[in-house]
Amino acid sequence: MNYKMMGRFIGHILLVEAVFMVPSLVISLVRQEHMARTGFAASIGITLALSLLLLMLCRGSKRGFKAKEGLVCVGFSWIMMSILGSLPFYISREIPSYIDALFETVSGFTTTGASVLPEVEVLSMSILYWRSFTHWLGGMGVLVFVLAVGASGESSKGFTMHLLRAESPGPQVGKLVPKMKKTAEILYLIYILLTVVNVVFLLFGGMSLFDAVCTAYGTAGTGGFGIKNDSIAGYSPYIQNVCTVFMLLFGINFSCYYMLLLRQFKSVFKDEELRLYLGVVIGSIALITWNLRGFYATLGETLRHASFQVASIVTTTGFATTDFDLWPSFSKAIIMGLMVIGASAGSTGGGFKCARVLIVLKGLRRNLRRAISPQKVQVVRINGRMVDEKVLDNTNVYLAAYAVILFASFILVSIDQFSVTTNFTAVLSCFNNIGPGLEAVGPTCNFGAFSWLSKIVLIMDMLAGRLEIFPILILFSRTTWGRLKG
Amino acid sequence: MNYKMMGRFIGHILLVEAVFMVPSLVISLVRQEHMARTGFAASIGITLALSLLLLMLCRGSKRGFKAKEGLVCVGFSWIMMSILGSLPFYISREIPSYIDALFETVSGFTTTGASVLPEVEVLSMSILYWRSFTHWLGGMGVLVFVLAVGASGESSKGFTMHLLRAESPGPQVGKLVPKMKKTAEILYLIYILLTVVNVVFLLFGGMSLFDAVCTAYGTAGTGGFGIKNDSIAGYSPYIQNVCTVFMLLFGINFSCYYMLLLRQFKSVFKDEELRLYLGVVIGSIALITWNLRGFYATLGETLRHASFQVASIVTTTGFATTDFDLWPSFSKAIIMGLMVIGASAGSTGGGFKCARVLIVLKGLRRNLRRAISPQKVQVVRINGRMVDEKVLDNTNVYLAAYAVILFASFILVSIDQFSVTTNFTAVLSCFNNIGPGLEAVGPTCNFGAFSWLSKIVLIMDMLAGRLEIFPILILFSRTTWGRLKG
Repeated sequence: MNYKMMGRFIGHILLVEAVFMVPSLVISLVRQEHMARTGFAASIGITLALSLLLLMLCRGSKRGFKAKEGLVCVGFSWIMMSILGSLPFYISREIPSYIDALFETVSGFTTTGASVLPEVEVLSMSILYWRSFTHWLGGMGVLVFVLAVGASGESSKGFTMHLLRAESPGPQVGKLVPKMKKTAEILYLIYILLTVVNVVFLLFGGMSLFDAVCTAYGTAGTGGFGIKNDSIAGYSPYIQNVCTVFMLLFGINFSCYYMLLLRQFKSVFKDEELRLYLGVVIGSIALITWNLRGFYATLGETLRHASFQVASIVTTTGFATTDFDLWPSFSKAIIMGLMVIGASAGSTGGGFKCARVLIVLKGLRRNLRRAISPQKVQVVRINGRMVDEKVLDNTNVYLAAYAVILFASFILVSIDQFSVTTNFTAVLSCFNNIGPGLEAVGPTCNFGAFSWLSKIVLIMDMLAGRLEIFPILILFSRTTWGRLKG
Repeated sequence: MNYKMMGRFIGHILLVEAVFMVPSLVISLVRQEHMARTGFAASIGITLALSLLLLMLCRGSKRGFKAKEGLVCVGFSWIMMSILGSLPFYISREIPSYIDALFETVSGFTTTGASVLPEVEVLSMSILYWRSFTHWLGGMGVLVFVLAVGASGESSKGFTMHLLRAESPGPQVGKLVPKMKKTAEILYLIYILLTVVNVVFLLFGGMSLFDAVCTAYGTAGTGGFGIKNDSIAGYSPYIQNVCTVFMLLFGINFSCYYMLLLRQFKSVFKDEELRLYLGVVIGSIALITWNLRGFYATLGETLRHASFQVASIVTTTGFATTDFDLWPSFSKAIIMGLMVIGASAGSTGGGFKCARVLIVLKGLRRNLRRAISPQKVQVVRINGRMVDEKVLDNTNVYLAAYAVILFASFILVSIDQFSVTTNFTAVLSCFNNIGPGLEAVGPTCNFGAFSWLSKIVLIMDMLAGRLEIFPILILFSRTTWGRLKG
């Protein structure tokens, strides 16, 4: 293992994190939130010190970076980032239990939005800002950010490639342009632009700037931390609809936006993943609206709640305007289905991803056809291009890993005495980076009552979900560390 | 499509089915059960007539049989068998609704054991006998039986191979001996022998011959239809323990028994699937016993109930001695995990199968290792032999099909207003051919309250589960029928 390079990279990440804590410190100073101010000042100090220590200790070493090291590096830096990012919550005593502070931070960075807090309106503004900002940072990926802003001097080509592959969601890495640094830059520019437009639309609805920025962070990262106890339910229908639209926009593969900028409208229109994604959204809204007839006063209201909740769940954001745990079983089943499917690859959303669903379904059809006429060669095509057998294989293995982790976590979390539905949807929700589940973890409830064991399991699930399993799984593999000694 | 050969084969199957109804007719005559007698007489008449008609119409045609036709043939003959097998229930008016009669019959043949009946003790003896006997027939497979008893004259080699492959459970077809007919014979001989030994052990416990035979049918087929309203709960601990042991025995790959007969003790002892199966059983019993401390009066009672329920669920039998829906969440989660894992390949049990779990887990580990060191060639070995990449691929695709069907069925069944857990475990239970689920379909409840739509979905799930998906999926494929016209 190239420890020095890894150490240096994590040093960079922590440096960026310390800088990103500064706005929260400023808010705490302006608002005279003493406990929070101490929290941020101390956290920045500790993070900065650790960062500089790593950067100093890990100078030198030019040897290249291997795929394994890329994965391990991504896994570790997310864990380190979470541990240090939780310090403001803990030191300010706004979340007095450390495991709770860590849960909240991991939930933030992984854009899950599952909270341990029964009330968020009691938090200070600077803490609320930091809480929402972790979503925005985690959404596009902190490592991608580091790649975008520089560090290009020392990062070899293989290094950035491996990192981007490990942190970016989706079965295939979307290289927009040949240079990785350039790709990361373009992604972040689109991300910032969309976020700003979102803030503007929210301001038009009469939101305060603070509320609009925090809500936009939660939307852009498809995170879901709200700043009100009732999430988005208390805002006007206009604001709810703005959120619906922007959640859906952030759940689309960002390469589609890049193609739009290049005026390649046709290829965006014909993109099979986009079609599946929109098809799932429209289909689910239609079915739920049908199923909810008579549940709300008017059809308009039903449609608004149905679209908001579908958008929130399929993009794995987790905002809510109504308690869908009270909906009839059919709607709840669709919600659970959406939890698994998730957003598009290359978006900020989580879940299994539409691209993978497409590959799995097409692979299934291929094998069925193969069984019908074994002598014929059958290939899988997406957007007209042949999908590599390796990608097919990896996607199926991903599904296997997904199923194994889902069931193992469900059994472990069940040691706490909650209902089957609570336990199952808690895991489903955390692993797919959504936020709310059903019953005791429904939209009006929180994760505070779980034991520390369950919280650790759910923390690992959130990280595994956000990093697409392998960077976390590899940390537990004997082969990774066995090779180290040799 | 070779319709003539298919028709002739289905004709043979129905002939066998008509013959197998005769014992029930005899019982109805002896016990003077008039309605049941009419039911069986009429059913035998109809089945026989249809069988002879098919055999007459479909003479001639020598062309070979393709893989596709094997799959379609198996799918169709199970559907035909179920439609005709349900006639006694319906004509005798003991199950007045036809969809219920069909559900009960499919549940019987697929060895699921899910019932629509709130009470079974009110049924006549001949109907009870037929109900239990469908388990025994379905367990080893009716087509395998037809292969074993003959029809060898007209069945080409490819034909029998394709059929056996389509009906036998497991990722690889266990050819015990080069000749298929001989393999089928050996399998049935072991099956009959084990069933007889089971009956003898039950008779020792003071059961009546009728009870012992019916219970043994349910055990051998890993079906689960009981002849008492409280399943096995009312019998003595000795009988419950006998059932536990025999359920576990019928969940073992039958090739292990063949190897025992050949005195290849070492390869049985080292069989990785057997080790996984026994490991899962022992581990689950230990965890549930720990979780249930204080739930029953003594440790012995806890151990007895834990072992019985674990054996019943992992082998997908579905007998019960206690209402595990009242157990704590952790035990229920383990039970749900066992529902998915299922019994060994090449046994009479259902589920995903231990062999597939083994392949999926080893494939997962392989891909993880490949990510760690991409330059190294990594192969998957089971029992020391290399697993073909095609088998790995098919197993992963099987998992994909499994997951897709599970979720689609869950959403469809949710149209009925039951709870999430009820709907999910109802599908889990039917698709894995178990019987009971949780909550409204728990061990003390039944499937009668579902709508006809849900019943049809669950019927398809039971068939898809028993025939391992593809023979049923292929009936819905456009490619199958598109090719037909050509």
